[in-house]
Parts: sequence; C-alpha cells; structure tokens
Amino acid sequence: MGGKGVVVVGGPCAVESLDQTRTIAEHVKRAGGQLFRGGAYKPRTSPYSFQGLGEPALQILARVREEFDLPIVTEAIDDESLKLVEQYADCIQIGARNMQNFALLKSAGRMRTPVLLKRGMSATLEELLLSAEYIMSEGNYKVILCERGVRTFADHTRNTLDLSVVPAIKRISHLPIVVDPSHGTGKRNKVLPMSRAAIAVGADGVLIEVHHKPEEALSDGPQAILPETFAQLVREVDAIAQVLGRTLQPALAAS
Amino acid sequence: MGGKGVVVVGGPCAVESLDQTRTIAEHVKRAGGQLFRGGAYKPRTSPYSFQGLGEPALQILARVREEFDLPIVTEAIDDESLKLVEQYADCIQIGARNMQNFALLKSAGRMRTPVLLKRGMSATLEELLLSAEYIMSEGNYKVILCERGVRTFADHTRNTLDLSVVPAIKRISHLPIVVDPSHGTGKRNKVLPMSRAAIAVGADGVLIEVHHKPEEALSDGPQAILPETFAQLVREVDAIAQVLGRTLQPALAAS
Amino acid sequence: MGGKGVVVVGGPCAVESLDQTRTIAEHVKRAGGQLFRGGAYKPRTSPYSFQGLGEPALQILARVREEFDLPIVTEAIDDESLKLVEQYADCIQIGARNMQNFALLKSAGRMRTPVLLKRGMSATLEELLLSAEYIMSEGNYKVILCERGVRTFADHTRNTLDLSVVPAIKRISHLPIVVDPSHGTGKRNKVLPMSRAAIAVGADGVLIEVHHKPEEALSDGPQAILPETFAQLVREVDAIAQVLGRTLQPALAAS
Amino acid sequence: MGGKGVVVVGGPCAVESLDQTRTIAEHVKRAGGQLFRGGAYKPRTSPYSFQGLGEPALQILARVREEFDLPIVTEAIDDESLKLVEQYADCIQIGARNMQNFALLKSAGRMRTPVLLKRGMSATLEELLLSAEYIMSEGNYKVILCERGVRTFADHTRNTLDLSVVPAIKRISHLPIVVDPSHGTGKRNKVLPMSRAAIAVGADGVLIEVHHKPEEALSDGPQAILPETFAQLVREVDAIAQVLGRTLQPALAAS
Repeated sequence: MGGKGVVVVGGPCAVESLDQTRTIAEHVKRAGGQLFRGGAYKPRTSPYSFQGLGEPALQILARVREEFDLPIVTEAIDDESLKLVEQYADCIQIGARNMQNFALLKSAGRMRTPVLLKRGMSATLEELLLSAEYIMSEGNYKVILCERGVRTFADHTRNTLDLSVVPAIKRISHLPIVVDPSHGTGKRNKVLPMSRAAIAVGADGVLIEVHHKPEEALSDGPQAILPETFAQLVREVDAIAQVLGRTLQPALAAS
Repeated sequence: MGGKGVVVVGGPCAVESLDQTRTIAEHVKRAGGQLFRGGAYKPRTSPYSFQGLGEPALQILARVREEFDLPIVTEAIDDESLKLVEQYADCIQIGARNMQNFALLKSAGRMRTPVLLKRGMSATLEELLLSAEYIMSEGNYKVILCERGVRTFADHTRNTLDLSVVPAIKRISHLPIVVDPSHGTGKRNKVLPMSRAAIAVGADGVLIEVHHKPEEALSDGPQAILPETFAQLVREVDAIAQVLGRTLQPALAAS
Repeated sequence: MGGKGVVVVGGPCAVESLDQTRTIAEHVKRAGGQLFRGGAYKPRTSPYSFQGLGEPALQILARVREEFDLPIVTEAIDDESLKLVEQYADCIQIGARNMQNFALLKSAGRMRTPVLLKRGMSATLEELLLSAEYIMSEGNYKVILCERGVRTFADHTRNTLDLSVVPAIKRISHLPIVVDPSHGTGKRNKVLPMSRAAIAVGADGVLIEVHHKPEEALSDGPQAILPETFAQLVREVDAIAQVLGRTLQPALAAS
Repeated sequence: MGGKGVVVVGGPCAVESLDQTRTIAEHVKRAGGQLFRGGAYKPRTSPYSFQGLGEPALQILARVREEFDLPIVTEAIDDESLKLVEQYADCIQIGARNMQNFALLKSAGRMRTPVLLKRGMSATLEELLLSAEYIMSEGNYKVILCERGVRTFADHTRNTLDLSVVPAIKRISHLPIVVDPSHGTGKRNKVLPMSRAAIAVGADGVLIEVHHKPEEALSDGPQAILPETFAQLVREVDAIAQVLGRTLQPALAAS
C-alpha cells in the first residue's frame, strides 16, 4: 500500500455467521473490493453489548479468504486476540480506542504481519505518528495509518472526518494512510461522498462497512452501506483515482 | 450556483492596491476562475491589524471587474459597508464571525444581491441554516452557504475543514454550498488537495486565496497559493467535477 | 468590579412582562443579589423564536431598577439597541455571538457605560482580550469579561464551562471577569455547584438566570433556577468568597 | 472515598529515585496529604521518552508507604504491571489513554484493590461510566472516577478541565469522583485555583503532582507544584470543603 495503487477494503462491522460473511464477501469481491474486513473481537463501549464471536469468527474469515481469494483485515484488542489474529489475518487492525495502548502496540511491533493503526478520537497528528513509532521501534515497519474521524461539537455526523490529515501525513511520513468514512461519519448516506473525497485528497485507500441487511446488523448498522452502493463506490473511487494518476490496485492475492 | 456547474472563486485575502489586484485578477481570469474575491473590509481579531482599505478597495474591485469581466464577491461587516458593497459587488459575503450577527443578516436580507454566508467557527448545521433563514425571511432568497473550517483540538491545520457538512446540507436544503479550503486549513500546501476533496464530496464550488507575492501579503499570506498552483487547481477541480457529471461553469458575465 | 468584592447578578433570561420582572427582581433583591439582568433584545438562533420585547422591556427594567434600587445589565445587539440600552442600563452586555462583531464593539467603545463582554463559543483567551481591546481602543475602559462556556464534544451540559480561563486572565489582564453558569451549563441543576466553583477559582462574580416559573419562561427555561435556589446560591457564594478573603459587595446603588 | 470526607492525593508524576520520592512524600505527609501518588509505569506518547522505572519504583513506593504511613496510588498499563501494582499499591490507577482498553479494565475488575479510573481525553460521561461498568461487571465494585481534562480548541491550558462532570456524575452514579487539575490544566499556576474549584463543585478529592525540583522532573515538570504551594492547597481545599459541610479526611492508614 502507499504506491500508485489505491485499495478499497469492504466487509461487515462484525462477523456474525458464515452465511452473513460469505454473502457480503461475494458482493465485495464481485464489486472489485481488494481486501475484506470483519470484526471477530469488538471493543464495545458497553460490556453488555455484543463483543464479537472471537476465534470462530476468525475461522469464518479464513474460509471466506480462501473461497474468494480476499486478504483479511481484522482487529486485535489484547495480547491473546493478537496471537490468534496474526495466525488468520493478512493485516492486524488496532482500533482507535487502543491507539495509545502502548503495550498492545509493542506486541504488534513484534509481529511480522502489517498493522493498520487507527487514529484515536482526539489524537493529534504527532501522537498518531508516535504510536506508529511504538510499533516500528519493535521491528515491524509495515504500518498503515487510518483516519476515522475525531470528536468535535458538530452533530450532523457521529465523528468529524478530518481529511486534511492525509496531506499533512504525506508531507512528513512515508507511511500509507487510508480513510474510514463509515466510522468517520456514522451515517450511511455520507459514506459514498466522503469516500470520493478521501481518494481526491490523496488517501491510499478506503475502509468501508458493507452489509446486505444493515437493519439486522449486530453492530453499527446505521453506517453500513448496501452491496449495490458499495459497487458504485468502487467505480467512483476508481474514477477519482485516475484523475490523480492512480488506479485501483488489481485484486491482491491473499498471502 | 448549485446546478450542474461548479465555480472557482479566486483572489487575494485583501485588496492592497490597484496593481496587486489587477495582477492577481489577470492570473485568476487566465486560469479559468469564474469569480473574483478580495476584501475591502477585513474583520480582524486585533484592532491594531490592517483593517482593509474600505471604499477605495471597492473602487479597485469595480475597475478589475470591468477590465477582466469577473464578477466580484466581497465582504460586508456592518450596515455602512453593506450599503457600499451592494453598490459595487455581485455577491455580498458575510464572514464566519458575523454568522450570528442577526442585525446584519436581516439587513442583507433586504438587499437583492446574492449573499455568501460563511459557517461560524463552531456553528452546527442547524445554526447555519437558521442564519440563512434570517436572510431569507427578509425576502432575499439568493443565499450561498460556505464551509470554512471549524475549531477543534487538531493542530496540523488552523481549522478543521468539515467536508461532511456538504452532503448533510444537500439532503435537507436546496441552498448551494461552496468550500473555502484557504481559511479551512490556513496552510498553502493543503489548499489544492482539499479543493479536490471539496468538489469530490459534492460542493458547488471553492473559494481560493491567491497571491503572486504571498510573503508580502497584508493578511493571511501563509494560506494564499501562487498563481501557477491556482491554475493547476482549476484543472484538477474540473477533472474531478467531470467524474461527478458536472462541469466548471463557463465564465460568468459580471451582472 | 474586580476588587475584593464579589457580585451576584440575577434575573430572567428575557423580560416578559412587568409582573414577571417585578416578581423576580423582588426575589433577587431579597436574596442579596446586587445587580439585575434581563434581556430586552434577544439574539436567537432562529428568526422565528421570541426576539425580546425591545424598548418596552427597557422601560420595565427602568421601573424595576428604581423600585428595588438594583442596577441593570442588559444586552445590546446592534447600534440601534445600543443607543437605547445606554439610556436605560447601568451596564451594556455584548453577547457571545457578537464577541467578534467589531463594529458593535467599537460603538460600545464610544459609550461611557461599562460593558460586559461575553466570550464567544469557540474564542481563545487571546481573541477575547483583543475584542475587549476593540472597546477600549475607542476610549471606554470599563470592560468586564464573562466566561459562559465553550463548544466541545461533551454532551452532559449544553456548553463546557471553562473555569481555567479565570486564573489565566488574572495573570495577564487587569480586567474583571465574571462567570455565567446558566448559559455555561444549560442545566438548572448544575448552576449552584458551578457558581461555587466559579467563585472558588477566583471569578469576580456570577451571572445567574432566575425565574419563578421556569416552565413558562419564553426562553432558556431549563437553565433558570428558582428564587429559593438563588437565595441558597448567594449564601454559598458568599461563604466561598470569604475563604478567599473576599466578600459579597454591599448592595450597589443604581447609578 | 465518596462520603463526607475529602481526600488530597499528592506526589510526583514519576518515581525517579528513593531520595526524590522520600523527600516529596515527607512534604506531602507534613502538609496533610492523605494518599501518595507516583508513577512506576508511564504511558508516554513517544516510545523514546522516559517510561518509568518499573518494579524498582514500586519497591520505592512500598518503602515510602511504610515510612510515612501513606497509602499508595500508582498506575498499571498492562496485565503484567497490573499484577505487580496490585501487590504493592492501595489503589490501582488506569490512565486516560487506557480508559477504553477493555481487556485491562476486565483484568482490573478481577482484582480486589480499588481502581482509580481516569476519564479519556474525549470521553463522554456515558462512556466513562460504561468503562467503570467493565471493571464492576467482573466483581470489583471499588471504582473511583477521575476527571483530568478533555481536548478542546482552547490553548491557555493543555486540556480543558470539565468540572461540570462532577455534579453530572453525582446525579446518576454512586461512584466517588476526584479531579486531577495537574493534568487537567498542564500549568502549575492553575493547579491551586482549580483545586479549590474542584472541591467547591463537589468532588470527593483532588490528585496533585508535587515536586521539590520541578525543573529537574523526568516528566511533566511544568505542571508540578512546589511543596509549599501544596501545603497552601491542602489548607484552602480544607476551608472550601467545610463550606460544603465536608472535611478533609483524617490521615488514612495504609491498609
């Protein structure tokens, strides 16, 4: 990531079942998505909310990965899940709430798998880069940054997606940066326009929540887009990328 | 504004002299900019900063308007300047600091000239639309909204440009909305990428500060782009607009 | 203001009628409040909300002032209301929305009446002091600053009252500063504790919305406290002031 | 904590040496501080900053605890440090950066030692209480909440101390809440006034960084107060507490 190619990552917020995951993966693959995302471990605000299926979800992701030849991005939330995620996934996600969980960052730094590091909800640019440094200082240089919105007073979106951080990072770091407009806005109808804007500003990819039945999703349904919108998103992102002399990367082979 | 066409407004932060204004206007016109901006009355944080040239600046703008056939957008800051601006300009700007100066909004509502209303630094979407309503309730329906960045903790830009407000407004209002990435980021090197993003997200135009000698500008030099960057900006904005099935509007005749 | 004495200003958000105003003024006087507040001109977010009674409200305030010997603080929102407010009131309030309405600040600077200047919703300390400078640079040095809460992501109060601005101002300015916990929290049950905290941090006074029937108030009912709570507030503020070697000022004579 | 008594916790940001820690502890004890704080594990923004002395610091704290009969509060940052902190300390601190490190919260919930949980830099009231719930749902009900400032645009302090969260929590939760004005402002000269305000608003205690040579401190020197200021702080906090019918708790015996 981070070269001329642009990637679109698609998938559900959480892996809920083999059926749900296969259905969505098929849509993502057919639309031209190059990576598949889906949470096995969910860091939820409340201890009483659905916390993810855990290792069975990782096994589902492994099946989907093989069947559709889609590399997998999924989140680790502690040392235990980190070890399992490393076995199953092509890219380890560290979520916004853990951006300054330095113990976890150092553990991820001892892995050889790429790490997708999300910006914390009120993290400055410097703090994000120093958190990446925690991973790299342990020897893992394959870090991908991710802007996913910050906390402000504005109430028309759940978070305020700060796209200016993309050119700001490009000026001072070699690290690739992708944008998550699903969490960044929290609203389905903002995902498509903000994805176009993310690529237009220079991001190396977008991370999109897709669900064929968002009203039944176990988490974050209101921000998941439908498969047909995802297909349109891939087309539009591709067209914008071309204006910048970039292209959607060809399907990545699962490593 | 607000149809299929997309507009690029260019010009200096402040009108400093006839020479400076003519030079920049020539660049803006040649690059394909459709409107010209330049401040005659500057609402400055400090009473001891340059406050604008006042009416002589309006006269300079009038000459430039005629010479280059560029319609003029310029700011009014009180009833007195409003009356003068109305005589000289094609569009009256109400700045962010005056977004809730309701007396001024009502006065602008009694004019027949279009009003460009900038979002306040911590205004919600609802507050912006209700301020527009203050203008429209007096009979002037030609209101153009403008996103120019909001105040947050983030320190890599002077303000945080909130592009998600563009699709949010498009869902609930017929009013056109443009984006000002110059004030929205306060940094020259962010203006081009954020302009592309603004058009990609669906904005009806961008408002750009241009200066041929930004290091000598009397205000906001660090965010002014050079004429050659402005020309590149117009080309890139045009290309992005076409992806969305829109085009840069043909040169507007000064009314 | 600004010496050893501490002042408590009480009154309704808006003057609604002579009866309502007299009733509240009687409570404020009896409880030991030293100034009376009440809006005649209300800068409301929506043009369709109650905008204040205008000059008739000023006349009501004048009667109350005489009857209860309570000096009056009331808001001016433009040049027209400023002239009237100056005739009737002992202190001119400039609201948060007008903190950078520089034309109005300069007009207030040409008055001889003290000006209470409220901090804007996202104003920095420097911006607040420079707005005060707009008033003083015209010759009126009697400026009182007011913290009334700033915009943040926090949702348990309407605004986030930033009490640290009080000692920050005391270090670099001779100007007195008061705190408005009614607007600063937007919630009745936070007004009493935040008033104590305001005096404890070193503020020169508090500005309190009081209403005997808050559920019938024409504006800001949810943040108005009842007369009996106001009486308790005066007592507690007085006790806190004494810990700091200060006292509640004796009743001020209306000038 | 959380009854009529009010506690003052004092100590250095980080344990640097036995000498430094003993010196400060003697000052804290003599001034009337009831608990001692000092970091053994420091969650630092940069991996290249001083990270704390680890277990040797805990051993220093244990000596100081015995010598001065001061209970100890110190931070745990992962499962490994948590086990050690539990052995040595009377209260386990979970820092703001780990407020949503749910794995750590659950581990702390399986301990029997009280947990001091700091509010995250952009956490809502609901999120703070749900993080406390992660601890309590594992069986440890001894949770103390701590307000330590939130991220906003304001630049006169490092964070904006949100004192209104204290009465907001008192209305909906039985949990005690203390305030940390040292991190909450990041500036030495704001610590004393904000401590008074914290007690005046109803907090159950304050957490204060003290250093006898702040200019030589290995971390956060600019916000540490001198021992003599700490002594004054204890006296003033006590006087404010009495206005609210509370008292400084008598010296707590180290359990």
